[in-house]
Amino acid sequence: MADIKTISWKKDKAIMIDQTKLPQKFEYLKINNYKRMGKAIKEMNIRGAPAIGVAAAFGMALAALKTPADINKIDFIDHMTKAKEYLSKTRPTAVNLFWALDRIMELINNNKEETVENLKNMIINEAKSIAEDDYQINKKMADIGAKLVKKNDKIVTHCNAGALATSGIYGTALGVIKRAHELKKDIFVWAKETRPRCQGARLTAFELLEENIPHKVIADSMYSYICYKKEVDCVILGADRVLGTGHVINKIGTSGVAIISDYYNVPFYVIAPASTFDLKTSVEDVIIEERDHSEVKKINGKLITPEKSEVINPAFDITPPDLVTAIVSEKGIIYPPYETNIKKILNE
Amino acid sequence: MADIKTISWKKDKAIMIDQTKLPQKFEYLKINNYKRMGKAIKEMNIRGAPAIGVAAAFGMALAALKTPADINKIDFIDHMTKAKEYLSKTRPTAVNLFWALDRIMELINNNKEETVENLKNMIINEAKSIAEDDYQINKKMADIGAKLVKKNDKIVTHCNAGALATSGIYGTALGVIKRAHELKKDIFVWAKETRPRCQGARLTAFELLEENIPHKVIADSMYSYICYKKEVDCVILGADRVLGTGHVINKIGTSGVAIISDYYNVPFYVIAPASTFDLKTSVEDVIIEERDHSEVKKINGKLITPEKSEVINPAFDITPPDLVTAIVSEKGIIYPPYETNIKKILNE
Repeated sequence: MADIKTISWKKDKAIMIDQTKLPQKFEYLKINNYKRMGKAIKEMNIRGAPAIGVAAAFGMALAALKTPADINKIDFIDHMTKAKEYLSKTRPTAVNLFWALDRIMELINNNKEETVENLKNMIINEAKSIAEDDYQINKKMADIGAKLVKKNDKIVTHCNAGALATSGIYGTALGVIKRAHELKKDIFVWAKETRPRCQGARLTAFELLEENIPHKVIADSMYSYICYKKEVDCVILGADRVLGTGHVINKIGTSGVAIISDYYNVPFYVIAPASTFDLKTSVEDVIIEERDHSEVKKINGKLITPEKSEVINPAFDITPPDLVTAIVSEKGIIYPPYETNIKKILNE
Repeated sequence: MADIKTISWKKDKAIMIDQTKLPQKFEYLKINNYKRMGKAIKEMNIRGAPAIGVAAAFGMALAALKTPADINKIDFIDHMTKAKEYLSKTRPTAVNLFWALDRIMELINNNKEETVENLKNMIINEAKSIAEDDYQINKKMADIGAKLVKKNDKIVTHCNAGALATSGIYGTALGVIKRAHELKKDIFVWAKETRPRCQGARLTAFELLEENIPHKVIADSMYSYICYKKEVDCVILGADRVLGTGHVINKIGTSGVAIISDYYNVPFYVIAPASTFDLKTSVEDVIIEERDHSEVKKINGKLITPEKSEVINPAFDITPPDLVTAIVSEKGIIYPPYETNIKKILNE
């Protein structure tokens, strides 16, 4: 994975690894307009909070680039506002999406005196720097987080918060794991399968194989068993949103991992860049995305339930702060009480 | 399901529903020798603790039936002992298997003075009565257990402990649920998918549909989320073995359900006939069956992990007694302290 970028900007196009095909096929998607980018985000050709942020920024860059050369400024800003609206509806839970879209709109609003041509270049450069910042931030989090990993630790991770979930190379939770491996801490990783879409079994296992990190895949329901067998030293996973209270919104199943970890006294670490924090929203107002039911009813296109049985498909859940041992951001390690310490460390 | 027997004895053969084909295909298997029965148990054409007990008893009946008419008694008993050894190696965790095999061997040992012809008939009748007893016991547990269910309860179940897991009609955990439905308690059931083999998604959902019981299927990782949303009133599931201490050995994932239920104060009920109790073995000596790794790596025959990633596949886990609210057997409801109350109620 060292040389492969999950998403990058090349010759006026966004190039991304098609994650719906992994691990059986490794293919790239070339995206050249913002509506196609919205579809890729919605259908999870690209996923993972930081990667969604980068994808949204590149979506805005494509929206800017594809306007006519002679467009007037009012129409241009109107067009960008519509593109923002469109892209913001693709995934409702990951806050990085909104963070990236806001960052581009802010740039436009702060530079309304510039020519359209200049604005276009500024937007493209801003999107590229969101991607570049993401890499630098992940690298920093990996260095900070690896300090929490002890020699010979057996680590559990849920879903995929690796290079594939970011602009590439490190990743968030898997970045910490990779760094601990680079530091020769002789770690072992349990990758939870993460139904319904199996990002753990498909993507995390793929990345761990690429990095030669010893690992095994388990079904989600096996987590309690390996804790009981004393085969787990800590949990390291990512987040799609972290509230000011320390509530962690992450892939469905995360809160169950947190409760079981608490029962067995296993430390539970969340790796989340500052862009994943949402200090404005209260836990009651978080919208949990309900995805297509076929994701639960079918695996690899084949039914595993009776045709007529209904299902639910919430993509995320909410872990309360008292179950979280620490949160690692690029600004440092945040310990409880989160209500005060999140603000303190993010503003430092 | 009301008229369909999971396993029954007909014209010197055991007839069983092939559960590996459900819910997409409904087919019967006709089994006419004990080695084929062993294979059916091992490959889970039939599964569920009580059903495995009945299948093992029918396996012994087939072993007896297929001996030559002129076999001498020593050779007959030797043959039956070998059949018992063979069948006892098919699944190591469900105690009903050993209970049924021991019951047949005890019958033989207590009646060594009988002719081989008589012994054969006695074995076949004993196997039939194990199946018939199973139905009566399940009916009784359903009546007793239904008292624990309140009007409008939303019930969670894990794996399949329905008619398909027994000799038919009621089942253990699902028997209680069906009885509550018959009593018009307006219940709703969440069927947990139960990876890796998806018995919840495939078999429990199939039975609930057949009985017109309102239900939805969830991935295992969604359990904590529905508790958080206050959509769960109790858990009702079966057991493959219950120790004298109250430790419950059941399908992988059960202990995680118990821990999460405890966190949310959701009552956790285990439905287990007396034949499922094992008062001799200590928790350290329980063998957890490790099944074929392809069950985790593939779904419907297709890989969901990279080819090279390893997995584990423990079929069961162990739930400690302090997480169990009550255990229902045909002798009554058993509450903590289990160490004393299990013996007391089973011997009543």
